[in-house]
Amino acid sequence: MAEPLFQRAALIGFGLIGSSIARAARAHGLIGEIIANARTEATLAKVRELGIADRTEIDPAKAVVGADLVVLCTPVGALADVAARIAPHLARGATLTDVGSTKQSVIRDVGPLVPDGVHFIPAHPMAGTEFSGPEAGFAELFQGRWVLFTPLPGTDDAALDRLDALWRRMGAMTARMEPGHHDRVCAIVSHLPHLIAFTICNTADQLEEQAKDQVLDFAASGFRDFTRIAASDPDMWRDVFLNNREALLEMLARFTEDVQAMARAVRWGDAGYIEESIARGRKIRRALIEKKQA
Amino acid sequence: MAEPLFQRAALIGFGLIGSSIARAARAHGLIGEIIANARTEATLAKVRELGIADRTEIDPAKAVVGADLVVLCTPVGALADVAARIAPHLARGATLTDVGSTKQSVIRDVGPLVPDGVHFIPAHPMAGTEFSGPEAGFAELFQGRWVLFTPLPGTDDAALDRLDALWRRMGAMTARMEPGHHDRVCAIVSHLPHLIAFTICNTADQLEEQAKDQVLDFAASGFRDFTRIAASDPDMWRDVFLNNREALLEMLARFTEDVQAMARAVRWGDAGYIEESIARGRKIRRALIEKKQA
Repeated sequence: MAEPLFQRAALIGFGLIGSSIARAARAHGLIGEIIANARTEATLAKVRELGIADRTEIDPAKAVVGADLVVLCTPVGALADVAARIAPHLARGATLTDVGSTKQSVIRDVGPLVPDGVHFIPAHPMAGTEFSGPEAGFAELFQGRWVLFTPLPGTDDAALDRLDALWRRMGAMTARMEPGHHDRVCAIVSHLPHLIAFTICNTADQLEEQAKDQVLDFAASGFRDFTRIAASDPDMWRDVFLNNREALLEMLARFTEDVQAMARAVRWGDAGYIEESIARGRKIRRALIEKKQA
Repeated sequence: MAEPLFQRAALIGFGLIGSSIARAARAHGLIGEIIANARTEATLAKVRELGIADRTEIDPAKAVVGADLVVLCTPVGALADVAARIAPHLARGATLTDVGSTKQSVIRDVGPLVPDGVHFIPAHPMAGTEFSGPEAGFAELFQGRWVLFTPLPGTDDAALDRLDALWRRMGAMTARMEPGHHDRVCAIVSHLPHLIAFTICNTADQLEEQAKDQVLDFAASGFRDFTRIAASDPDMWRDVFLNNREALLEMLARFTEDVQAMARAVRWGDAGYIEESIARGRKIRRALIEKKQA
């Protein structure tokens, strides 16, 4: 096995993503020693039971001592607090990164706290499942998935390349993007679809009892696809929505206008408008399939 | 093999559903002779090439002659016209049924045209894929899927039982339902999810070019699930939306209110409201999974 890319990594937060990083890094020998940190002793006991870290540490400030890589894996709403606790203890020359789905908020919350001599590189692995917790992780989670970096101006090239190599060796594809652009793209491809999925589940849940029961019976016809998305981790998604507010509200406004236009076409029997909308959906699906094959 | 349930069936419209009925009926020996009808010679040539019907007939009026089962498998918007053409040629004692996703409109459009002595039994197999055309059909399409009957008052029990047996022997589960209730339930479990999926594809398609390209690159994070639904047959879905207008607009109005409430919670940072919404989505997902296991 090759020389590890990092000698000691502290993973702050050890749910689906954190535990998958630990497993993938181990599987490929990418990190010398892995320190797991989580908010509760119960989670750390689970980590020890699973045997997926070299050491567990309940205090994030202690977890990061001597680490040349620190990965923040908590919901994005907790990052400001966590960063404040670890900042004084970060080793000079260490790389500090995260896995949050919003990047402007992470830069806003964490950026000002990073000490001189620490390489802060915001990152977003676009991978996940509907399950959460350390037991939900697996080494292959990042295989063929994108990891987006939104480095700040002046970021050290060598540090960025090393972090890039870590993710690529865990099976991911990597790209670099401006943080505001990242947040807009994720608002439409991920945050809005999740918000819509949660919402339609609510709409269904508020129907009168008989109809509600039958929603479950007959869910296979489209609705079920929405519930799969809607099963994702609540803490994570609450924080994503609240921390990508501007971009999400903008996409939501566009979507709502488009829904209203469809409603109007249905009301007035505008077959042409409806056909065009459906045709565009198919076109996007086809483009997706072609892109995947290419 | 058992005695067939019907001696001769005319399938009017021969796309995904029609051709799947033909294949499933053959696989289980349920129909003596299958007559395929479609709007174009090209489709019928394809049917002959696939060898999935005993006879093809371009004129629906001729196709139904001597048939003890007639299944209307066209988009629901075409049913009034088709019913008018075949009505004078239906055999006394024949069963006339359909596969439309809207049932009040079918009863409105077809009901008044049905001659005395013909058993008209509206039906809706809740099965489909994102593909269409006779080549997309397969014998197992209805396995474990629901078929809903919305019989009119006074429907002949023996005729209903025979049609029920046909669907069950093709692998489906069957239920009976009041037509208005059917249309409301399908509006929320199927029609609204499809409308939303088409709409979000439109919203994405109307973004500026750079963001649009990246929607395709990063679609895996939620958006892709919507595009799968959005790839469904345009003619079918246009007709469904226009023929379940009242129920669809009602569900759409509820959904839009719920979307606006979520937007408001995001704007004002109402974490509690967002958490509750997400929790309800998870609850529904869990109920679905338990229901399936039960």
